[in-house]
Amino acid sequence: MSDKTALTRTKHKGVEDREQIHSILDASSVGYISWAEENQPYLIPLAYVRDGDRLLFHGSTGAGALRKLAAGSPCCFSSFVLDGYVLARSAFESSMHYRSIVAFGVCRVLDGEEKVQAMNIITEGLFPERTATLRPMLDKEVAATLILELPLDEVSAKVSADQPHDEGDDISWPVWAGVVPIQHVLGTPAPADNLMNEFQAVPEYISRWTK
Amino acid sequence: MSDKTALTRTKHKGVEDREQIHSILDASSVGYISWAEENQPYLIPLAYVRDGDRLLFHGSTGAGALRKLAAGSPCCFSSFVLDGYVLARSAFESSMHYRSIVAFGVCRVLDGEEKVQAMNIITEGLFPERTATLRPMLDKEVAATLILELPLDEVSAKVSADQPHDEGDDISWPVWAGVVPIQHVLGTPAPADNLMNEFQAVPEYISRWTK
Repeated sequence: MSDKTALTRTKHKGVEDREQIHSILDASSVGYISWAEENQPYLIPLAYVRDGDRLLFHGSTGAGALRKLAAGSPCCFSSFVLDGYVLARSAFESSMHYRSIVAFGVCRVLDGEEKVQAMNIITEGLFPERTATLRPMLDKEVAATLILELPLDEVSAKVSADQPHDEGDDISWPVWAGVVPIQHVLGTPAPADNLMNEFQAVPEYISRWTK
Repeated sequence: MSDKTALTRTKHKGVEDREQIHSILDASSVGYISWAEENQPYLIPLAYVRDGDRLLFHGSTGAGALRKLAAGSPCCFSSFVLDGYVLARSAFESSMHYRSIVAFGVCRVLDGEEKVQAMNIITEGLFPERTATLRPMLDKEVAATLILELPLDEVSAKVSADQPHDEGDDISWPVWAGVVPIQHVLGTPAPADNLMNEFQAVPEYISRWTK
């Protein structure tokens, strides 16, 4: 925790436990990353995988955003899971349940063997148990991919999971109050139009994917 | 569309239709906003409501992030909906279905009557059909809330909804390929611990909430 990651408000929502930070990151596969040029901020959604105490990102070597990050621009990363709506008796106390992460740092470009390893970690992280069944990577695919690593050195987390905060007379206001949970679930897999007949069986591992 | 919002890659995913941009924004209630100080980017998740061609944000007057935006820092906003995983036969072609928005601009602080109107628009946007049933806002609650407006002048959108892009020999690689959709659904409403017995009926309008 540093000046940038110290919470100035709602400190009771702060999370410093490393395992909990990891579990919040592991609950999503897409976050956001920002960088700035002459104080103009830029922001893109970006798929990620957490591996130990680092985040791994991938993209095309032709992507301008990733090139800025690769060049060492200071960046800010955030990931967020919306868990529910908190319906209080007043608009003021109405809120959301969420888990969020903010991390600061500078990305490092991975090359050579550690790049290939990271690419496999990303594939396995996004699509668990599938990597070994895929057509192996080609050298030209590795060459066309930029892999970035962001160390999780400067990171903070916030969790909001409280009951509605109504107090006093508000509690008897005649309206339903509570929490409406939001669930992010997988639907029925749809085969590719050109999937050959002999491969139509949906892999069993998909049923174990939870994010 | 400007230099900042023009897509330099994957132009086929670009969306310029204003109605489609609105519908992507309306599919979420939380986005991300970034600003910068001396080229250090900052990034926070932020609830939002689209109202016509503007986004509305709210927060505590004590929130440092919102104060930076209120002071006129150039900002970048993004919202993203993850719709599915695209499982190709290779890691390289594996991908995601998504809808994303990026907007640039400067926020404006709303005051007086337009602030109160915006607060009601935000409540109704986040919790449709509920506003009129809530305990009315108090002056001190209005005073403790900062309301920001971001005009949707400089905005771009991207939609990824394609089949897996495998070509040639890859199509006969012996693995299932297709799309696994992701759905964001509401779970069973949980009443507040202190909800009085006479107000236990869950409001019917919640069943019409779709985001």
